[in-house]
Amino acid sequence: MAQTDQLADAGHPLDHFFKPRSIAVIGASPDTTKIRGQLQSMLAKNGYAGRLYPINPSYQEIAGVRCYASVAAIGEPVDLALIAIPAAGVVAALEDCAVAGVRHAVIITSGFAEEGGAAAEAQAEIAALARRTGLRVSGPNAQGFHNEPGHVAATFSPTVDVKPDRQPIDLGARRVGIVSQSGGLGFAFYNHGKAWGLNFSCVVSSGNEADLGAGDFFDYMVEDPATDVILLFLEGVRDTATFVAAAAKAAAAGKPVIVCKVGRSGAGERATASHTANMSGWDAAYGAVFARYGFIQAADPDEAIAIAAALTTAPLAGGQRAGIVTVSGGGGAWVADTLAANGLEVPELSQEFQAAIRPLIPSYGAAGNPIDVTAQGVHTGGLQASVDRLVESDEVDLVVLVNSLSSEHRIAFDVEAMGKLARSQRKPILVYSYTLPSDFARRRIAEAGLPVFANLTNLGIAARRLAERGAYTPPRPAAPAAIAPAAARLLADLGPALSEVDAKRVLGACAVPMARERLVASAEGLDEAMAAVGFPLVLKVQSPQIQHKSEVGGVRLAIADAVAGRAAYRALLADVAAQRPDAVLQGVLVSPMAAKGVEIIVGTLVDRTFGPMVTVGFGGVTTELFKDLACRPAPVTPEEAASMLAELKAAPLLEGFRGAPLADTDALCTLVAQVSTIAAALKDEVAEIELNPVLVHPAGQGLTIADALIVRSAPARPPA
Amino acid sequence: MAQTDQLADAGHPLDHFFKPRSIAVIGASPDTTKIRGQLQSMLAKNGYAGRLYPINPSYQEIAGVRCYASVAAIGEPVDLALIAIPAAGVVAALEDCAVAGVRHAVIITSGFAEEGGAAAEAQAEIAALARRTGLRVSGPNAQGFHNEPGHVAATFSPTVDVKPDRQPIDLGARRVGIVSQSGGLGFAFYNHGKAWGLNFSCVVSSGNEADLGAGDFFDYMVEDPATDVILLFLEGVRDTATFVAAAAKAAAAGKPVIVCKVGRSGAGERATASHTANMSGWDAAYGAVFARYGFIQAADPDEAIAIAAALTTAPLAGGQRAGIVTVSGGGGAWVADTLAANGLEVPELSQEFQAAIRPLIPSYGAAGNPIDVTAQGVHTGGLQASVDRLVESDEVDLVVLVNSLSSEHRIAFDVEAMGKLARSQRKPILVYSYTLPSDFARRRIAEAGLPVFANLTNLGIAARRLAERGAYTPPRPAAPAAIAPAAARLLADLGPALSEVDAKRVLGACAVPMARERLVASAEGLDEAMAAVGFPLVLKVQSPQIQHKSEVGGVRLAIADAVAGRAAYRALLADVAAQRPDAVLQGVLVSPMAAKGVEIIVGTLVDRTFGPMVTVGFGGVTTELFKDLACRPAPVTPEEAASMLAELKAAPLLEGFRGAPLADTDALCTLVAQVSTIAAALKDEVAEIELNPVLVHPAGQGLTIADALIVRSAPARPPA
Repeated sequence: MAQTDQLADAGHPLDHFFKPRSIAVIGASPDTTKIRGQLQSMLAKNGYAGRLYPINPSYQEIAGVRCYASVAAIGEPVDLALIAIPAAGVVAALEDCAVAGVRHAVIITSGFAEEGGAAAEAQAEIAALARRTGLRVSGPNAQGFHNEPGHVAATFSPTVDVKPDRQPIDLGARRVGIVSQSGGLGFAFYNHGKAWGLNFSCVVSSGNEADLGAGDFFDYMVEDPATDVILLFLEGVRDTATFVAAAAKAAAAGKPVIVCKVGRSGAGERATASHTANMSGWDAAYGAVFARYGFIQAADPDEAIAIAAALTTAPLAGGQRAGIVTVSGGGGAWVADTLAANGLEVPELSQEFQAAIRPLIPSYGAAGNPIDVTAQGVHTGGLQASVDRLVESDEVDLVVLVNSLSSEHRIAFDVEAMGKLARSQRKPILVYSYTLPSDFARRRIAEAGLPVFANLTNLGIAARRLAERGAYTPPRPAAPAAIAPAAARLLADLGPALSEVDAKRVLGACAVPMARERLVASAEGLDEAMAAVGFPLVLKVQSPQIQHKSEVGGVRLAIADAVAGRAAYRALLADVAAQRPDAVLQGVLVSPMAAKGVEIIVGTLVDRTFGPMVTVGFGGVTTELFKDLACRPAPVTPEEAASMLAELKAAPLLEGFRGAPLADTDALCTLVAQVSTIAAALKDEVAEIELNPVLVHPAGQGLTIADALIVRSAPARPPA
Repeated sequence: MAQTDQLADAGHPLDHFFKPRSIAVIGASPDTTKIRGQLQSMLAKNGYAGRLYPINPSYQEIAGVRCYASVAAIGEPVDLALIAIPAAGVVAALEDCAVAGVRHAVIITSGFAEEGGAAAEAQAEIAALARRTGLRVSGPNAQGFHNEPGHVAATFSPTVDVKPDRQPIDLGARRVGIVSQSGGLGFAFYNHGKAWGLNFSCVVSSGNEADLGAGDFFDYMVEDPATDVILLFLEGVRDTATFVAAAAKAAAAGKPVIVCKVGRSGAGERATASHTANMSGWDAAYGAVFARYGFIQAADPDEAIAIAAALTTAPLAGGQRAGIVTVSGGGGAWVADTLAANGLEVPELSQEFQAAIRPLIPSYGAAGNPIDVTAQGVHTGGLQASVDRLVESDEVDLVVLVNSLSSEHRIAFDVEAMGKLARSQRKPILVYSYTLPSDFARRRIAEAGLPVFANLTNLGIAARRLAERGAYTPPRPAAPAAIAPAAARLLADLGPALSEVDAKRVLGACAVPMARERLVASAEGLDEAMAAVGFPLVLKVQSPQIQHKSEVGGVRLAIADAVAGRAAYRALLADVAAQRPDAVLQGVLVSPMAAKGVEIIVGTLVDRTFGPMVTVGFGGVTTELFKDLACRPAPVTPEEAASMLAELKAAPLLEGFRGAPLADTDALCTLVAQVSTIAAALKDEVAEIELNPVLVHPAGQGLTIADALIVRSAPARPPA
């Protein structure tokens, strides 16, 4: 049973929200088939130890607790009001709360912004009331929260209902905090987690977020000492700045965050003209934020909870080498394949190692890795000895024990010894059962502090995440450098559309390295420009109205000498005049033919949620057909740019692929960082930058930006 | 209880194996803690209704059944002997069985080929005995089988143990047959499946396969009228011809096959010189066979069983459009994302459709798809009406119902109505619970014939497989055309290594279209050859000893005229002489510069398990970094070659990517088919063919084979 002093206040503004010393249930009812009746009953059943005030003018008492006609009638300060009355009365009830000095409210009632129209206006009223009065409001359309160690079940979710006839499984592990933008899903995670025996701090559903948002609750979980791992279910972040600041704090504090993001498919995609924007889409911005802060993405509730089970019971892995101990050859092979598919290694163990365990396993077993101790090996001590030695050895970084745990009365290994080894936190030990684990086995093994993985795919993913998170360090923040006044002035002077040469001037003014190029406005200047640039060279027409120069005959490549150049110049102008007589030309850009290099696309865009983003990928099919792009919030440092490159499947192209020289990745990382800083500084003026292609030359020889595009922000953008 | 007449014989040679009228348990024991004691007890507990003969000279009776000193002492014909005595006595026991006219034996005993040495020789003796006597033997090292409808539990697996206190869940669905090369995993599938309420025909573990192999058992399941869906767990097929023939029969009969293949990672990979061989590796041959016969691959036991649950309860999907009905917005969005990630569509429903259901769901719900009926919509009839209409409509091909089924006493929809709709088999209806379904809900819904999916990833995969399998038709077999005698003679006359020109001659003799090229053996013939070929042209040195011509200066490209050609010829020979003075030159190949085209690699190799294979992919990074290759057993028809191209992620490159013309895929498919037929016909002489690159020109303009390689089989190949 909770003690009232556990519901004490501390530093965070939401402390009295999650640990209220007093709760008013507005709309309380003795009818526990109704949501408003369930709120009080859930609080009581889960052992809420603070002061509870049912509010309903129709009753004197409910379930033995004195009932009040209004919040004002309580006459004492209230930390939290739970509101479950029809939508029409909600705003008035909140006014009452504000007047009575209630600190926080959760509006359970539905039918606000999700309906549109007048109902959406009512939600706007709630938001305004919160700002005006200082009453912090969660919801409407929220399912409330459950503070498990504090025994505050401020929700009607049936998943927190207490079943007195059933002793819950308890891993006694570190605690998970859940922030969910869907009440159903938030408590579904809780429900899945309890079946594993996970421990939770708070589970909170943020509903329509009229006032308090997912970012606020996330921030609380990051600061909350009772929360060790955070699980987020997101539909779309609204309080972006708070959210991102909390993410940075979590990363700095080393508190792991698991995230499930929905709404990736379908209508949410942008329709913009440039390639990178189309291909990355708005979902990439979430991925970029998650990547920067080391969030662990999960594809379904089971996977999220499997990862949480690993993170709350095991240490992070110091590397990606796995040792497998199995009682079934087939099971061991399947686990090995699954780990390999997750990027882990299953190295053959040393001869010394194998010699040490060989005598303990039957002759038809195997000692190489997987170590197949066979069904007999559990009797000969081979199983425990193998796990012990793997934990001791420096040959692997994590251990998977493969077993059949379907029996209701027998477990084929020493659970106490295994649990003790696991609790030493020296290396992750993950237990997988290829048969469905019995309740008996789950319980017994959980009591020793070890979760049982019953889904092989999720075992593989959990192992991978322990290794990935073990290797994660938060990137150093990039300095938000101011843009040279020259660049800003240039931009201010240019029209709504920018040509290549305009874009290159702006970038050049920001110290981005540009090739020696000359703009020739008339035939007279051509010879001098060609001489200055040198042969072979390229001619490209320049006009803000012509975005696709090749398509109108506006590009001439590989010009070897002045004679050819003059002819090409005339032919180019004739072609362009024929095809785009409307276009106002700035002239023809004379550029050197770029030396060979690895083709790269560097792009930026402004995401409607998270702001400026920078993207890097290889050109052509790798980007368009294989979606091989890396994205981060802008700005990035060159080091973070390097981690972006490492993420690309085609990264070997930069690393001396098929005998090619190593590419100048230093120059490329510097460029990505520079461009990201420009995008961040000009986020209100510039919608997109695209450098395509960038030719990255061999190490030490820099790169060439062969083409550049800057798209200005639309002057009157509709709000997101 | 089974009737003896259900254990009758029919047409298949293994009918008396799986439906034995009599069983001898050799090594029977009253000690049911031992495997040999469990065999008799499992048979009895599961209601075996045939004649049972324990064999053990130490007992008069075991568990009330008369015990015999030997098989010979029975004096009656025996259909099946289960052998669980120490390895040393197994061969003698088999001899006794053969003499006594026993038809089949399962050797449970371990310690044979898996140990190597003398134990492996004992296994060879078993195989020889089976061949000599006609006694068909399964194992050794097998876990036996379980014939569920026939009540023959010829195994010691605890997963078939009968628990009288627990009524099993029963979907009353079509039956799954399991063939497993791992006993532990085979019965683990059974164990997982029973938790869903799946029905099985036979589960069989094939052990070391001294005689009967996975292919034999697979063939039985294909022919068995009681088996509707087949689940295979494979480590490595040994009886390849039987296996492939059974696969073809299953495909022709439309009997779905789910396959789990382990041993994909690690040491099993080939080390060969050419690219396709390296990149596809031996695992690709399994994938090729699976693809041809429409096998459904599964990554873990849960996934396999989820797919089996869908296949045994739902019809195949007639398309890939999904309708979603949900009580939770977040849950519906997540399901939509998951289906989209699996290649399904979640189309917006027509205005007519939405107008029809709108009145039945709360205003804060949604009718577009997902249809969010909200928690309230279950009371207003919106849930059932939405599912009804989706099943009726031609706007979707399958329906997913998203619900929370954790309650132990309440289900938020009409289970009977939903079950009736599902049993009509008009469209797949898949029920997903985002909370852990209660035993109550699982049972109630299973009784109505509907499985409950509790894992979102597997729900998505099951839906995808229903759509994919619905679209599958078995390919027409390619004719195994004989190779022109000229090609065979050419090959016979050539040395151990072939140059490009040698390879092209062989292929040309097989009617593969070749460019007009000339081999020039001395400077005298050069001018005439160049004139015949036409400019621009290419010179390439030819020598069986030079595989990488460019690396020794042996290639000159884009030669514009005869003067340049003569100079290039001299320079080429000088470079090659300097770098490879040892090489015996055949001459210099004069080829036209190929017109532009999409670069393709076509290759073949001979897989040690499945024989000749043909591979097609795009060149460069798509093949090497993105593993974008398609593989099939050779030969293929041009139609099957087209299905290979459709499998490639980079397929849009052939389909007018970014404004390029459509490529001549007809010519490419014909080439792939031709090369595959050559590889099949010459499988004993030719280890690999590689055409790299093939330039596929615009539609109607054919293709150019720019380079070709044929690698002969090693003369003395070690057996696989």
